Amino acid sequence: MASGLAAGIKKSGKLDLALFYSQVPARAANLFTANKIQAASIKLSKFHLAGNKEFRAIIVNSGNANCFTGANGFSDARETAAAVAACLGVKREAVLVSSTGIIGKRLPLAKIKQATPALIGKLSRNGIDQAKAAIMTTDTFAKEVTVKFNLGGKAVTVCGVAKGAGMIAPRMATMLCFLLTDAAVTQRALDAALRAAVDNSFNCITVDGCMSTNDTVSILANAAAGNVLIDLNRGFSLFLRALNAVCLELAKMTVRDAEGATKFIQITVKHAASAAEAKNASLAIADSNLFKTAMYGSSANIVGRIVAAVGASGISVREEGLKIKFSPLKKRDVRIEVDLNRGKGLAVTYTSDLSPEYIRINAEYN
Amino acid sequence: MASGLAAGIKKSGKLDLALFYSQVPARAANLFTANKIQAASIKLSKFHLAGNKEFRAIIVNSGNANCFTGANGFSDARETAAAVAACLGVKREAVLVSSTGIIGKRLPLAKIKQATPALIGKLSRNGIDQAKAAIMTTDTFAKEVTVKFNLGGKAVTVCGVAKGAGMIAPRMATMLCFLLTDAAVTQRALDAALRAAVDNSFNCITVDGCMSTNDTVSILANAAAGNVLIDLNRGFSLFLRALNAVCLELAKMTVRDAEGATKFIQITVKHAASAAEAKNASLAIADSNLFKTAMYGSSANIVGRIVAAVGASGISVREEGLKIKFSPLKKRDVRIEVDLNRGKGLAVTYTSDLSPEYIRINAEYN
Repeated sequence: MASGLAAGIKKSGKLDLALFYSQVPARAANLFTANKIQAASIKLSKFHLAGNKEFRAIIVNSGNANCFTGANGFSDARETAAAVAACLGVKREAVLVSSTGIIGKRLPLAKIKQATPALIGKLSRNGIDQAKAAIMTTDTFAKEVTVKFNLGGKAVTVCGVAKGAGMIAPRMATMLCFLLTDAAVTQRALDAALRAAVDNSFNCITVDGCMSTNDTVSILANAAAGNVLIDLNRGFSLFLRALNAVCLELAKMTVRDAEGATKFIQITVKHAASAAEAKNASLAIADSNLFKTAMYGSSANIVGRIVAAVGASGISVREEGLKIKFSPLKKRDVRIEVDLNRGKGLAVTYTSDLSPEYIRINAEYN
Repeated sequence: MASGLAAGIKKSGKLDLALFYSQVPARAANLFTANKIQAASIKLSKFHLAGNKEFRAIIVNSGNANCFTGANGFSDARETAAAVAACLGVKREAVLVSSTGIIGKRLPLAKIKQATPALIGKLSRNGIDQAKAAIMTTDTFAKEVTVKFNLGGKAVTVCGVAKGAGMIAPRMATMLCFLLTDAAVTQRALDAALRAAVDNSFNCITVDGCMSTNDTVSILANAAAGNVLIDLNRGFSLFLRALNAVCLELAKMTVRDAEGATKFIQITVKHAASAAEAKNASLAIADSNLFKTAMYGSSANIVGRIVAAVGASGISVREEGLKIKFSPLKKRDVRIEVDLNRGKGLAVTYTSDLSPEYIRINAEYN
């Protein structure tokens, strides 16, 4: 179940508080940002994940990152979890907390506490529509993907919601993503599936090369489907396929909704010396401002920008072996293929162009 | 002596061909881009530098980078040097070649050959004004700095010209810079002084984090001042001080004239664990699009952007120790000071903001 409402954290009056709730205890797996400065909400969630195995809820606020807020920020996150736990009648450690928005400002705790009973009162199976809207910051559309599959005669559902839309870089996790499944799955299978699915999706996208302090991908699995318990050697590939599909589609939606984006660009680097080299090269292209602005202008100069970015990435590429192909540049969806002619490594990265609208959004963001 | 003219390489009809000439043989020292894809002109210059110790001229064209042009490009660079050498009556190996502009297009060699006699005919002591204009691409003003100093009763001059104004990143060298001095200086002192001066200037600036295929810093020293020969242990600090002053001022001018820049930003990182760590942190801030757009908007959100960029740089910074100060954001010149509270490392980086004008310039560049 889920719910969302406007607690007054955002000046705009838009939805800014979301709750995801499992009626029975659920396992959790999480991947957090690799940023050395992490939000207080992440610190609290890590603390709860370390001492606990059964989870019931994730509370998420947008409009305030609760980051660079020191001991006060940690206390605010703890109070948020405590308020939700008390109202739900569950252990405080069974609640995870997530935040996104402006860095360096105290969370308006009183507003969150005041809104908590209403947030819980609104919990419903259809509440995902409010919840996915309430986690948005500069997103222009809400992002939800649901996949169902059959496992030994039982229908299993994997549902995910995510928010972008700037500060997207592929290191560890990216942005906020909440995955909910009724699958019965062991902890090690859940951990392994989440890691693999994120590597194959959120770690393949970049918008601006900037890594957030709040990035979180979180999954709750509550076994309500009644399927035979999924483990690494039983039902795993079916579960992973579903999780992969949800994460990859959410990741692509995040790039399509990147701040100011006018294009969705798929960069394939092939025949690199290794997969890591291919990834390095594709990210170097995707994160180059000169590449991104040339894409915005549909400029034929794109070849020069790709050549310079690949050369600057540190790869021992040779001019003679380098081949570049691209689909028509004026279209919204563009595919770029770079052949390094060095080996068998392959990588695909999804990115957006860089437009004046990205600058407007971030120049005015506060 | 120097000269510049419009050879028709640029569609706009602006000056696009420059010549720097020493009436007597000069020593040369050069630093080139660390990009693995290098322009044909750089390959040819490296070839001449490897087999030769006396140099007479540098020919520079703007409007075409002569890069990613294969064997034809190398042949074009060789023909360019040959035409200049023949017309000047010097050895071909005594001529260095430099190019800047669009990547992936053949150099219009016929136009360059045709213009060479006129270019040489125009050589004069005041020709530096045309030469510094002829090396410009998207620069909005020409950049020249001259410093004179006294060494044992002899006046020594160091003159430099440079062009920016995008694709500026601090790895090895940056952009094009030509330094001319009448100092008598040993090869090892010239090499050491150039390396030190570049580390302290062009390697401290960044505009967009993109590294060009054509970056070159070149110095000619022809001993015409008649000073006592400068070596590492004789007159070196005076010479280095002059070279430092010229390079740092040119580097700052390059940032002031960065594509679309509305601000000149000095980022000082202090109390890092090491100088390298301080440099890493200051560059991470300077190259963050979210920092740069917040600067463009004079947004108070700048603290959050700095925190996120420092945390993402990989440094083991602790939130508790991190202190950030800045001068008024609405001014054109902004100073930012970040105290990591970890040790004694210090670094200063100069950068610009990111404006819609940067995007317009590069979206339309061809």
